[in-house]
Amino acid sequence: MEMDLKMAENGTWKWRFRLDDVQRPACAVTVRGVVNTVMESLNQDDGRVVVQLGRGDPSASLSFRTVAVAEGAVMDMVHSAKYNCYAPAYGLLPTRRAVAEYLSRDLPYELSSEDVFITIGCAQAVDVMLTVLARPGANILLPRPGFPFYEARAAHSHLEVRHFDLLPNEDWEIDLKGVMDAADENTVAMVIINPGNPCGNIFSHQHLKEVAETARKLGIMVISDEVYGHLAFGSTPFIPMGMFGSIVPVLTLGSISKRWVVPGWRLGWLAVNDPSDSLKDSGILDAIKGYMDIAPNPATFIQAAVPRILERTTDEFFSRINGLLRESAEICFEKLKDIHCVYCPKKPEGSMFVMVKLNLPLLDGIKDDLDFCTKLAKEESVVILPGVALGLKNWLRITFAIETCYLDDGLERMKVFCKRHAK
Amino acid sequence: MEMDLKMAENGTWKWRFRLDDVQRPACAVTVRGVVNTVMESLNQDDGRVVVQLGRGDPSASLSFRTVAVAEGAVMDMVHSAKYNCYAPAYGLLPTRRAVAEYLSRDLPYELSSEDVFITIGCAQAVDVMLTVLARPGANILLPRPGFPFYEARAAHSHLEVRHFDLLPNEDWEIDLKGVMDAADENTVAMVIINPGNPCGNIFSHQHLKEVAETARKLGIMVISDEVYGHLAFGSTPFIPMGMFGSIVPVLTLGSISKRWVVPGWRLGWLAVNDPSDSLKDSGILDAIKGYMDIAPNPATFIQAAVPRILERTTDEFFSRINGLLRESAEICFEKLKDIHCVYCPKKPEGSMFVMVKLNLPLLDGIKDDLDFCTKLAKEESVVILPGVALGLKNWLRITFAIETCYLDDGLERMKVFCKRHAK
Repeated sequence: MEMDLKMAENGTWKWRFRLDDVQRPACAVTVRGVVNTVMESLNQDDGRVVVQLGRGDPSASLSFRTVAVAEGAVMDMVHSAKYNCYAPAYGLLPTRRAVAEYLSRDLPYELSSEDVFITIGCAQAVDVMLTVLARPGANILLPRPGFPFYEARAAHSHLEVRHFDLLPNEDWEIDLKGVMDAADENTVAMVIINPGNPCGNIFSHQHLKEVAETARKLGIMVISDEVYGHLAFGSTPFIPMGMFGSIVPVLTLGSISKRWVVPGWRLGWLAVNDPSDSLKDSGILDAIKGYMDIAPNPATFIQAAVPRILERTTDEFFSRINGLLRESAEICFEKLKDIHCVYCPKKPEGSMFVMVKLNLPLLDGIKDDLDFCTKLAKEESVVILPGVALGLKNWLRITFAIETCYLDDGLERMKVFCKRHAK
Repeated sequence: MEMDLKMAENGTWKWRFRLDDVQRPACAVTVRGVVNTVMESLNQDDGRVVVQLGRGDPSASLSFRTVAVAEGAVMDMVHSAKYNCYAPAYGLLPTRRAVAEYLSRDLPYELSSEDVFITIGCAQAVDVMLTVLARPGANILLPRPGFPFYEARAAHSHLEVRHFDLLPNEDWEIDLKGVMDAADENTVAMVIINPGNPCGNIFSHQHLKEVAETARKLGIMVISDEVYGHLAFGSTPFIPMGMFGSIVPVLTLGSISKRWVVPGWRLGWLAVNDPSDSLKDSGILDAIKGYMDIAPNPATFIQAAVPRILERTTDEFFSRINGLLRESAEICFEKLKDIHCVYCPKKPEGSMFVMVKLNLPLLDGIKDDLDFCTKLAKEESVVILPGVALGLKNWLRITFAIETCYLDDGLERMKVFCKRHAK
């Protein structure tokens, strides 16, 4: 063993290595990170409540409290003391079966428990897919604007990212020609997010079919992030991408986080929609299982609560939440019309967000979207997300999933801010 | 884009890639996987209860039920509806603080919340460490026999593994000369597991100090897996490796899984014991944070329950659990003396396991440890773990953390099995 021990014996311990940028990708952009950065500018002496329009988490709002049957199910499972044990690697069987049945309600075929893997929120489902698809030279197609967790996780797995655009003048539909141009023989998959984060759009049946046909032509699979599934409150119904599973295999990512307003419970799934068994020889299923054999698992008693949660939550709860979102989206869109330095191309009809374009020439002393958000936080104690975090510089992402009084107040303060900085 | 679309348009969808062994390491060996393999041999027509001595999870046993204050704390946090939100990336601050205080009770210095990261069980703490330490050409030193999750996770991160031995004739102490021989300039760290899985040993103060001094000489850090921390019921007290943090930086991995008998709650931690600030220029802290910024998190309400759990669990509960383990370890050791084809070098004084050597020449028609366990499952409905899964072929790992009546019954059946197969 060729090492000089003398120095080590006499001197202070010093690790020979340094973990530098070579090992780690450039500090990952995350929504959490960027919101925290913006929040550093909050003025501690401002006596007003901070209006948080930067994150997609309304769970602190009383009106968005989750349904009693969900809380009760989890408490019962803890109290039973039957679920303090380890769960199997892919999830408790009744949980997998219940999620399969839940998803199958909206599909033209039946998923089985074998098609479903229980994950720690939708985020871990993303983690699983990007990990198993990563291979030297491969690339994945992501939407822009998008959700930066995908880019961060892809970088971690050394999976090259290429972007396709969502078109603001086309109701945020996907630029499918751009998809065709971006893809090559090393493209493994494309990701869609529907209902849309950050744009608040819902893709039509026609458009989803075109996405499926494009992916089929390219010989790539579709990863459909449906974490906001069923949070659709406008004229366009939510249709799961799995509907087109016979055209192209679809890996659906979802969770109870948004529809049940419990993101902190960390319970999601990865579902394989492949009625034609096209993935049979691809090795994907084995790769997913192999990774899940060594990956962390969600808490067993939360898994155990899922069948009851999925079966017994009533439409009354779902309608109420969608009603709140519809009302808030309306308020948001109307108030934004009154703020002349921003432009909203499309009223949101899904998820919890809207994207607005910042018209910088109308403002004085505001450099860009990050500067806008930083000064807004400082001067008005309102937090919104700069679009640069999502791949669209000089746009802003605003959450409307919050008590209407706070939303109203926050947008009023934003209007005051814009007037103050108007040229 | 150079691709032939004609085939794709006319024919069935077929993914161009195949995820083969080049991407994935050989199917990871996990305790869960090997136990499941052994259990495939169980005889469905055997009317007797299956005695499960293969896993370290006594949570299903009534006598091992966790303490009411823990269940109550979790239920209260769910019921409050205050913790349905996302948690910060490194864990809720009160949780980090509570774990820092809990660990500091046994250290000669104070840990702060900044030193503690909340993870999804101890397993994710392992995941974090192996991920951040992985670099081209690096190697890590692991104990043999050990816990195969380390090997599996290291393979996934392309981190080379080298082994050092635990010496059966030296109370399972570490072969420190072997550590020195195995290390080279690319060695990043060594892992110790104390209390010991699979050997049931507790390292003495003297031995831990020698480990620290060896690591210091080698310029490597110590990762101390203390998931069985405080489950010490013999004459050797449990001493946290952090005690020697001023000799060498120690990364302690732990959780509530074993001491509170709630492995399914998935709540653990990674603690950085570095009172001399030796890791300052190493980049390790940043690397841990960078990975945890994008890694999954434990359920927020379970995190929120931790301060109350750590503060209010009484010594009476801890003593009771240790008493059960002491009693079971005694029964196990005594009954094993009566089974002549196995040899137990050391009565266990910690954790939930004991290692016994299989004396194959005394048996007829038993090829090796895996064959022994497979036939034992088939003929006697008793499940134990073959040592080959842990790096020690022809040894067996037996769990004694189970109701004493089942333990008694299981070992009795094992004795009958050995007699049946005696030469």
